[in-house]
Amino acid sequence: MKSLPLNASEIEQYFDRLWPICRSISGNGLRQSFHILQEIIPLELKEYPTGLSVFDWEIPKEWNIEDAHIITPEGKKICDFKINNLHIVNYSIPFEGELSWEELNKHFFTIEAQPDAIPYITSYYKETWGFCISWNEWKSLSREGLYKVVIKSKLEPGAITVGSLVLQGETKQEILLSTYLCHPSMANNELSGPLCMAFLYRALAEIPNRRFTYRFVMAPETIGVIAYLADHGAQMKKNTVGGYVMTCCGDEAPFVFKQSKNPIGYLEKCTAHALQHSHIEHSIIPFAVGGSDERQYCSPGFNLPVGSITRSMYHRYKEYHTSLDNKSFISFEAMVNTIQTYLNCIEIMEKNITPICLVPFGEPRMGKRNLLPSSIEPNDKRRKDIDRMFHLISWADGEHDLISIAEKRNESIKDYFDILEQLIQEQLIAIK
Amino acid sequence: MKSLPLNASEIEQYFDRLWPICRSISGNGLRQSFHILQEIIPLELKEYPTGLSVFDWEIPKEWNIEDAHIITPEGKKICDFKINNLHIVNYSIPFEGELSWEELNKHFFTIEAQPDAIPYITSYYKETWGFCISWNEWKSLSREGLYKVVIKSKLEPGAITVGSLVLQGETKQEILLSTYLCHPSMANNELSGPLCMAFLYRALAEIPNRRFTYRFVMAPETIGVIAYLADHGAQMKKNTVGGYVMTCCGDEAPFVFKQSKNPIGYLEKCTAHALQHSHIEHSIIPFAVGGSDERQYCSPGFNLPVGSITRSMYHRYKEYHTSLDNKSFISFEAMVNTIQTYLNCIEIMEKNITPICLVPFGEPRMGKRNLLPSSIEPNDKRRKDIDRMFHLISWADGEHDLISIAEKRNESIKDYFDILEQLIQEQLIAIK
Amino acid sequence: MKSLPLNASEIEQYFDRLWPICRSISGNGLRQSFHILQEIIPLELKEYPTGLSVFDWEIPKEWNIEDAHIITPEGKKICDFKINNLHIVNYSIPFEGELSWEELNKHFFTIEAQPDAIPYITSYYKETWGFCISWNEWKSLSREGLYKVVIKSKLEPGAITVGSLVLQGETKQEILLSTYLCHPSMANNELSGPLCMAFLYRALAEIPNRRFTYRFVMAPETIGVIAYLADHGAQMKKNTVGGYVMTCCGDEAPFVFKQSKNPIGYLEKCTAHALQHSHIEHSIIPFAVGGSDERQYCSPGFNLPVGSITRSMYHRYKEYHTSLDNKSFISFEAMVNTIQTYLNCIEIMEKNITPICLVPFGEPRMGKRNLLPSSIEPNDKRRKDIDRMFHLISWADGEHDLISIAEKRNESIKDYFDILEQLIQEQLIAIK
Repeated sequence: MKSLPLNASEIEQYFDRLWPICRSISGNGLRQSFHILQEIIPLELKEYPTGLSVFDWEIPKEWNIEDAHIITPEGKKICDFKINNLHIVNYSIPFEGELSWEELNKHFFTIEAQPDAIPYITSYYKETWGFCISWNEWKSLSREGLYKVVIKSKLEPGAITVGSLVLQGETKQEILLSTYLCHPSMANNELSGPLCMAFLYRALAEIPNRRFTYRFVMAPETIGVIAYLADHGAQMKKNTVGGYVMTCCGDEAPFVFKQSKNPIGYLEKCTAHALQHSHIEHSIIPFAVGGSDERQYCSPGFNLPVGSITRSMYHRYKEYHTSLDNKSFISFEAMVNTIQTYLNCIEIMEKNITPICLVPFGEPRMGKRNLLPSSIEPNDKRRKDIDRMFHLISWADGEHDLISIAEKRNESIKDYFDILEQLIQEQLIAIK
Repeated sequence: MKSLPLNASEIEQYFDRLWPICRSISGNGLRQSFHILQEIIPLELKEYPTGLSVFDWEIPKEWNIEDAHIITPEGKKICDFKINNLHIVNYSIPFEGELSWEELNKHFFTIEAQPDAIPYITSYYKETWGFCISWNEWKSLSREGLYKVVIKSKLEPGAITVGSLVLQGETKQEILLSTYLCHPSMANNELSGPLCMAFLYRALAEIPNRRFTYRFVMAPETIGVIAYLADHGAQMKKNTVGGYVMTCCGDEAPFVFKQSKNPIGYLEKCTAHALQHSHIEHSIIPFAVGGSDERQYCSPGFNLPVGSITRSMYHRYKEYHTSLDNKSFISFEAMVNTIQTYLNCIEIMEKNITPICLVPFGEPRMGKRNLLPSSIEPNDKRRKDIDRMFHLISWADGEHDLISIAEKRNESIKDYFDILEQLIQEQLIAIK
Repeated sequence: MKSLPLNASEIEQYFDRLWPICRSISGNGLRQSFHILQEIIPLELKEYPTGLSVFDWEIPKEWNIEDAHIITPEGKKICDFKINNLHIVNYSIPFEGELSWEELNKHFFTIEAQPDAIPYITSYYKETWGFCISWNEWKSLSREGLYKVVIKSKLEPGAITVGSLVLQGETKQEILLSTYLCHPSMANNELSGPLCMAFLYRALAEIPNRRFTYRFVMAPETIGVIAYLADHGAQMKKNTVGGYVMTCCGDEAPFVFKQSKNPIGYLEKCTAHALQHSHIEHSIIPFAVGGSDERQYCSPGFNLPVGSITRSMYHRYKEYHTSLDNKSFISFEAMVNTIQTYLNCIEIMEKNITPICLVPFGEPRMGKRNLLPSSIEPNDKRRKDIDRMFHLISWADGEHDLISIAEKRNESIKDYFDILEQLIQEQLIAIK
C-alpha cells in the first residue's frame, strides 16, 4: 500500500467539473455528477421510482430546475440560480409572478450572524418555494414596489438515483464505504466525500489479496441510503465487519473518528490502533445520531458497525451549509491525506488476524529453524525483533488478535507483519 | 408528583404527640405510637408472641414500664423516667431497694466526652437494670449514704408489634420502604424515619398508575424486621426491585445514599441518576453492615436490593444515641425535603423503562407524523428536542433503558418524558 | 509461620560451597551442586538422556570440563578457568592449538561498556569454543605472536539432570515453585534462586495442615524445564492453582512481582494482597515473555498461572550475566527476607478461602453464642472486631473470598483469621 495512485491535482480537476452542477436528491444534476465520478469508480446506478415504498418512507417526485431568479422593482436581477445554485431553496416548486415585499419576504432565507453567506435550504417533503440570500444583500433590498419571481423547475414523477459497487475479496465479510451525493455547490460538506471515495476505490482496487469484500455506496443522503438498505440491508447485516461514512473530509483540520454504537467493536479497535500509531492529530468521539447516513446504518433494526472519519465535522464549522463552504475552505493535499488515512485504517482491519501457535508446549526451538543466532550476547541489536518473535509466539493462544498482542508492548501491529510472515513460513504460527 | 400533600407544621404536630412516649421493641408505648401514625398511614399491625422462633431468634418477653427514679441520700429525686425516658436502661427489670453508692454505681451509664448528654442504653436480651445519666450530674452525686431505687416495670410474656402495608400497583414488582419504631424520645434517629415514611405513603397513595407495588414496613429494629421477614421474606425475595431503609432523615445535612450490596443494580442506577440530576448536595457510599435493618434485608439468604437515604447518619453525628438527638437537632422543612427526595428517586425507578423502536429499519419519517418541521434551519431553536427525539429512537433497541439513553447526552430522563409520550402516541416506540 | 528455621549465615555457608562449582545445563558440576542442595531439600534427581525428544527440543550432549586457559606469546597464563569459570564459553568443545591474534580474537567475548567485567556466554546448540575476558585485559593483550589455547572439555552422549520434589498437602491442588540450576559462578542470577527455594522448602515442610500440595522444580533453565514438562505438564495443567519462578532474589532491591498471563487470577490477587498489606516496597508488572522459565510454564499449550517474585530483575541491573554478579552484589539477610515474602504470599494463597454463612436469613443472634456483649455502648473498644464479625457474616454468601471481603474494609485477611476461626467453631460459617 505504498505508492498510491493518488494525485492532488487530478482530484482538483474532478472537483472543478463537479462544482457548478446543481445536485439534489433526484434529477439530472445528480445523474450528471454520477457520470463524471464513474470515470474513476465504476458505480452501478439504480433508479428508484417515485412512489415506491422503502421502509417508513416513499420515494418523492423527481426535481429538475432550469433557471430561477428575482427581478427587483429597480429592474436588477438578484438571487440568480445560474450564478450560485444555493440561491434557490432545493426542491422549490415552479413559480412565476409579481409579489410585494411583504409577500416575497416570507420566501427568503438568510443568516444574520453570517451576513455574507448564502444559506443552504431544502424543502424535499413540503411543496413550497423560496430563495436564499446573504443578510447584507437582503438588508439592501427595497421594501417598496413589486418583485418579479421566476422559478423554472419541475416536480414530477421520476426517480431517485443511487450508485453502488461491490469489490469482491477473499471472504464474504464486508467493509462498507458510504458517502452522499445530493448537495449543490458545496465543498467540504459534499464533494470531499464522493471524491475521496472515488480515489479510495482506485487505490483499493489495486491491492492484491484483499481479505474483505468492499461495498461502496454513493447515494442521496437519507432517502437514497434508506432505499439502498431496503434492497441490501439484510445481506449487509449478515456480512458487515465495519464501515465508514465518508463526509466532511476535505480540509486540513485534525481527524475525528466517530464510533459506531459499539465502542469496543472491531471497527473501533482497528481504527483507534491505526490512528494512534500513525501519529496524526485526531480525536475519537462516541456515536451520536446527529450526523449523516450512519443514522440509517446504525438504526436499531440494522445496527451495523459503521462509523465515520471526518476532518471539520458537520455542525462544527461556521461555513457548514452555506456558500462559504467552497473551494477556498478545502485542500486537495488534505484530501490525499484523508484517503491515505482511510487506507491505513483499512489495512489494520485487513491484517488484524488472530495467530495460533502450532508448537504450543514449551517454547519452540528457534535456533534449529535459523530464526535466531545460536548464542546471543546481552546487547545484541537484533534483540528487539527476537523479543517480538517470542512475544508473538507466547500470546498466540487463539484468544488474542494481533492488536492485543502488539499493544501489550505498546507497539503497532505493523511492527509484527514481517515476523508473522516468517513464523507462518516456518510453520510455527497459523491464522485462526 | 408536583403539588405534594406535605406540610412541615403537620409533621411537627405529629412529632410533638409521638415524642414523649416511651417506646421499646415491645409494649404499650410502641402500640400507642403505631395508633397515632395510623392516622396518616393505614398500617396493619401484627403481634408476634413471646417465645416464637423467627430464624435464629426468639421473640423476647414484652416490656412495659410505669415509673422509674432514684432518691438520693439527700432526698432528691433524680433519673426521673417521667422527665426523660432515656434515664432508664430500656428493658430494665423491675427493682426496688436501697443501695450504697458502690452497688448503685454498677448500674449507671454516662458519657464523659459529652458531659451534658444522657446516653441511650438497652439490654433486651440480658435481664438486668440500669440508669443513664449525664456525666455532670453523675459527678455531682454523693458517694456516701443510701440511694433508693424504684423501677416499676414488667417483663412478661406478651408480644412484639409490627406494622406493615402493601400499596398495590400495576405489577407485582415491589419497592420496599422500611423504618423502625422502637426508640424512646429521640428525634433524628427514630422519629424522622416513621414520620417521613408516613407522609411519603400519603403522597404515593395519591399518584395514579403506579407501575410498582409498594411495601411499607414499620417495625422494632432487628427483631421486628426478622419476624416480618420470617413471614414475607420469600415473597419479597421474588418481587423486590429496590428499597430503602428510612432512618436519620430529619436534619438539614446533605443526603447520603448508602447502596445495597450490588453497586450497579437498578436501585443504585436510579437513585444516583435522581440525586445527580436534582442538583442537591449528596454522597454515595457502598454497603456496609453497620447500620440499620438493611443488615437483615441484605443478609446472605435474602440479599435484597435495599439501600438507605439518610441525612446525618448513625454513628456520624455526636448527638446520636443521646438525649441531644432532640427536636432542636432536626427541622420539619428538612423532612419535607427528605420526602421529596425519596419521591424523586421513586419517580425515576417508576419511569426508567426500556423503549423499543417499532419502525427500526432506517429512521422513521418524522415529517409525515407532524413531529418535525418539513424544513429545518441550522439554528432552529427546536433542534434540542428534535435531537433528543432522534437520539431516543436510535437507541430504542430494547437493550438500553431510558437512563442509559439520557446519560449518553448527560441529561436527565425527565428531559425525555414528554418526547417519549409523543413517540408512544405516534406508535414509533413501545415499552419493552 | 512465625519462628522460621531460617538463618542468614547457614545460607551463606551453602553459598560458599556452591559458588566455585562450574555448572552448566548438564554435567558433573550440575550433579555436584544438586548433591549439596539435597542436604536441605530432598530433591529427587532424574537423568534425561542425550538425544531424547522433548516437545520441540532434543536433549543435547553432556558437557564436562576439566581445564581451560590461554598462554600469551609472553608466556603468561590468562583466561584461567580454574580462577574464574566464566572465562570459558559454556559448552565449549575441546581444543588445543597455537593461534595468531587474528584467529584467536574471533573467539573472544568482552563488554566495552563494562571494562572490568567478564561476560557470561554460552553456546549450547552450536559446537564452537570461546573465551570471555574483561575489556581492559583484552585491550592489553599483544596483537603479535602466537597464543596457545587449551580447552580440556568433553561433549559426549550423557544426560541432563533435573531435580524435583512433591510435598503433599490436604488437596491435590498444587502450588509450583521453580528455579534453575545451570549457571556457573554467579550470585543473584543463579545461586539466590536455588538457595531461597531450598530454605523455603525447609520452612514449608514444617507447617502442619497445608491445604495445597507443593511442587518444587530445580532444573537447567529452558531445556530442563521443557523436559520436566514433557513428563509432568499434563498433570500440572490440571492441578496448578499458582506458582512462582524463583530467580534474581538475593539482593536488597525492592520486590518485583511479575504476573502470569492472567492479571486477575488467584495468584495475582493473593500476591498483590500479601505485598500490599505487608508494607514492603514492591512493584507489580505484567507478564512478558522475556525472563526465565515462566516462558515455558506460560507457553500457550500450558498457560499455567505462574509468575515470579524477584529483587533486582534479569536485564535490569548492569552486573547481570557478568562476573560482577558475585557475592558482594547480594545479601544473605535479604535472602531471608525474600523467603519470608514468599512464605507470606503462600500463606495468603493457603488461607484465602470462601466463607459461607450457615445462618443466612437475617443476621444470626450473636449474644446467645457469647460472641458479643448483650449490651454495647457506642464507644466500646471491641467494636472494630464486632464490626468485622458482622461484616464477614454478611458477605459470606459463597460468592466472595476472604480477600474480597477484607478489601471492602481496606484490611488484610490476616485481620480476619481469628474471627473466622471463632465463627467456624460456632457453626455460623463453613468453608465453601
